[in-house]
Amino acid sequence: MSQQKGLPKRSENYAEWYNELVKRADLAENSAVRGCMVIKPYGYAIWEKMQAQLDKMFKETGHANAYFPLFVPKSFLEKEEGHAEGFAKECAVVTHYRLKADPNKKGALMVDPESKLEEELIVRPTSEAVIWNTYKGWIQSYRDLPLLLNQWANVVRWEMRTRLFLRTTEFLWQEGHTAHATSIEALQETRQMLDVYATFAEKYMAVPVIKGIKTANERFAGADETMCIEAMMQDGKALQAGTSHFLGQNFAKAFDVKFLNKQNELEYVFGTSWGVSTRLMGALVMAHSDDNGLVLPPSLAPIQVVIVPIFKTPEQLQVITERVNQIEKALQSEGISVKFDTRDNLTPGFKFADWELRGVPVRLALGQKDLDNNTIEVSRRDKERGEEGAKISISLDEVAPFVKQLLTNIQENIFQKALHFRQQNTHTADSYQELKDILATKGGFVLAHWDGTTETELKIKEETKATIRCIPLHEEAQAGKCIVTGNPSIQRVVFAQAY
Amino acid sequence: MSQQKGLPKRSENYAEWYNELVKRADLAENSAVRGCMVIKPYGYAIWEKMQAQLDKMFKETGHANAYFPLFVPKSFLEKEEGHAEGFAKECAVVTHYRLKADPNKKGALMVDPESKLEEELIVRPTSEAVIWNTYKGWIQSYRDLPLLLNQWANVVRWEMRTRLFLRTTEFLWQEGHTAHATSIEALQETRQMLDVYATFAEKYMAVPVIKGIKTANERFAGADETMCIEAMMQDGKALQAGTSHFLGQNFAKAFDVKFLNKQNELEYVFGTSWGVSTRLMGALVMAHSDDNGLVLPPSLAPIQVVIVPIFKTPEQLQVITERVNQIEKALQSEGISVKFDTRDNLTPGFKFADWELRGVPVRLALGQKDLDNNTIEVSRRDKERGEEGAKISISLDEVAPFVKQLLTNIQENIFQKALHFRQQNTHTADSYQELKDILATKGGFVLAHWDGTTETELKIKEETKATIRCIPLHEEAQAGKCIVTGNPSIQRVVFAQAY
Repeated sequence: MSQQKGLPKRSENYAEWYNELVKRADLAENSAVRGCMVIKPYGYAIWEKMQAQLDKMFKETGHANAYFPLFVPKSFLEKEEGHAEGFAKECAVVTHYRLKADPNKKGALMVDPESKLEEELIVRPTSEAVIWNTYKGWIQSYRDLPLLLNQWANVVRWEMRTRLFLRTTEFLWQEGHTAHATSIEALQETRQMLDVYATFAEKYMAVPVIKGIKTANERFAGADETMCIEAMMQDGKALQAGTSHFLGQNFAKAFDVKFLNKQNELEYVFGTSWGVSTRLMGALVMAHSDDNGLVLPPSLAPIQVVIVPIFKTPEQLQVITERVNQIEKALQSEGISVKFDTRDNLTPGFKFADWELRGVPVRLALGQKDLDNNTIEVSRRDKERGEEGAKISISLDEVAPFVKQLLTNIQENIFQKALHFRQQNTHTADSYQELKDILATKGGFVLAHWDGTTETELKIKEETKATIRCIPLHEEAQAGKCIVTGNPSIQRVVFAQAY
Repeated sequence: MSQQKGLPKRSENYAEWYNELVKRADLAENSAVRGCMVIKPYGYAIWEKMQAQLDKMFKETGHANAYFPLFVPKSFLEKEEGHAEGFAKECAVVTHYRLKADPNKKGALMVDPESKLEEELIVRPTSEAVIWNTYKGWIQSYRDLPLLLNQWANVVRWEMRTRLFLRTTEFLWQEGHTAHATSIEALQETRQMLDVYATFAEKYMAVPVIKGIKTANERFAGADETMCIEAMMQDGKALQAGTSHFLGQNFAKAFDVKFLNKQNELEYVFGTSWGVSTRLMGALVMAHSDDNGLVLPPSLAPIQVVIVPIFKTPEQLQVITERVNQIEKALQSEGISVKFDTRDNLTPGFKFADWELRGVPVRLALGQKDLDNNTIEVSRRDKERGEEGAKISISLDEVAPFVKQLLTNIQENIFQKALHFRQQNTHTADSYQELKDILATKGGFVLAHWDGTTETELKIKEETKATIRCIPLHEEAQAGKCIVTGNPSIQRVVFAQAY
């Protein structure tokens, strides 16, 4: 019996394949609370690895963690106009602080009308308002700057259509909030954190990303500039994997945060904010996995190596176990996480399928015949079943160094496969018709010239469902003419349908 | 100028001393949101160290982390009667999911009445209800048990009187939720986690605790048995530092969680839950700190060693810096966290007071004279200013091994001081009058016999403000007679006024 029985194929129904895979691989499931998910232990273990690495990178770039309240008073949200517009329409509102026994229904509770709050509280959709209100008390002089903080937290945005990890009412994220004395310093911070995200995505998630700037229309509510990293999923759609915002003095003005500069003059502070969320889990799944299940990059796999014993009798298992214990120790001493699958009620075939479903990068199988030959069977999850090199036999004496090198190779191979896929699915269009044709037939990313206006952007969006994912940050930008209006364009931008 | 100027003395106003210390040492502050605190970077860094150690201990005992929704549907809370009664009176209730522009007030937002939820959502005060509702889908057979999960999360309990860390509307915590096939196994888990908490408190926080069982009256709402660790603060009051609950089959019955046992019979699952929170931060501060500021145990200090340069000229600073860089490296290679305080606008005296306030365990001071003598000044924070050994001079050649050993000594000394204090402030009472006298004059913990009834317990509480903190778990329990009723008592229990 294969666990993958019934897992839809990507080519048949990509959306269904994703949903089923997330559930079957025990990453997450829908909860009884509308739009909220339960992140299951295996999924959470991957998120913990992401968190640990990102947290390290934030600290290496001088940031410290702190924690700010879950609730935002309604009046705070009103203070920054663009921000209010962006978030008011989708928020959970706390209006009361007590329940009481329902006199009309035994055992039931009802909201106590006497506990109505004077001012409603919003469950944070993001924390700029609460944090800038706090920063007001912390910043007086240039000596208090820069203030470089991050918070790991849950946030709530009342989404009408939700999908596990990709769009949920509650999600987990980190949100950096920094304050600076100058515009240039805040812009440098915005860019630095974008680079941190890009490095994390490519080096750890093995997901290639395009760094770029959002159009005004796609900007964060309250920002002067939003930078982003965009990744391509296996259906050719784009996924925004992280954003870094230059807030200018918008929140400083909204919350009256001024500082005395070196010339002893009062000035508004400049700000940034940047975040990535459990959405990265969705990106990780959709970028690499296949019809047999997850494919996890070794850097983020909770279990990097699984060892499956092949035995018929308890005596055989005992002999195998002794050898496996040595292998486990050798691998662990190389910093590799190993699981020895000793479940006694499952066949090796079932176990193979099970670990394949869960995306464990390397599987070792050891039976009596292997022991006799002093060999062990090594399978790598990043190759297709039957593909050359997917399964080989190596000497038992070289397991640890071999597997160590193999994990490095797998990490690199997964990245290269995703990069190759993106290259294959990135096209250029020199006319609007060409853009439409590509989007309708091939999908993927389309590089095309755009005149920089929201009007043209919205027209294209309405007619093709593709949005401008970003204006790429690179040096070989070449000027041209807008495919819609023929007006001048500084460089091509990335069009794609998106998650 | 001393930072401590104006810090109240413990002997004058213990409550005020605590509040001011938490704020001045940059641990936390009140936010603009009623009852919610902002945990500042320095305070959060201590919490991160607590989290890291506890998380390690949870994983070593076989637990994995997961994440469950922030919101609890009202009907879930109703399902376990005792639980509902315990938490309904103090909860944040989400009733709507959208704001809209207020037509009567430009720029203002109002709750959109059309977004009223069919069923109200409660911001979790604890997660038993949501988690047991989820476990129903995860548990079918004895092979699915035990289920050993933990969650790091924020929770909200609408408290009327709040104090930083000790009692706040929102707080951070971990909550373990486990499911077992047998009652005995669940009881063992309950006890195991109590032991984990006690080990953490004593070994890492350097806070001695009494392990015990709560009376029926003080039990967690929904538990069959609540175990706790109780610590003594420097004002003699008790602080409950952690609880571990045996839930019996209460939540399994409320949420219909059954499993097929090995005999192929359907049975309700047994449960436990256990938690510690940012309240531990309050315990840490109140157990050890003094009138000059925090005293942090080295195990949890974000900065274990601070180095203050004593210099007059930039040239002197340069020479000192070169030597300090070597010392930093030597300390870091021993796994010690070091801060070199190079702030150029503050005097050494100010810096000394500042780091004293922040409780850094070891301070090194290095000036030209020290360099000439090849010595360095070492001050330890756990001793009073002027106390023997509080400040000594050692050879520059032995800094790293000396400091390493010193940190171990400080950790032990802080624990011993707290233990000694508790012993000095623990009394026995053999009559009700004696109990009253001790509580009125000396305070602290009072060991006395009690007849086991809630009636007697409440009478004592009403008349003395002392509660039964716990029925201690120890082996030398001796029987006696209740100090109030004269009825038989199996062992003495701990009475104290409490936070």
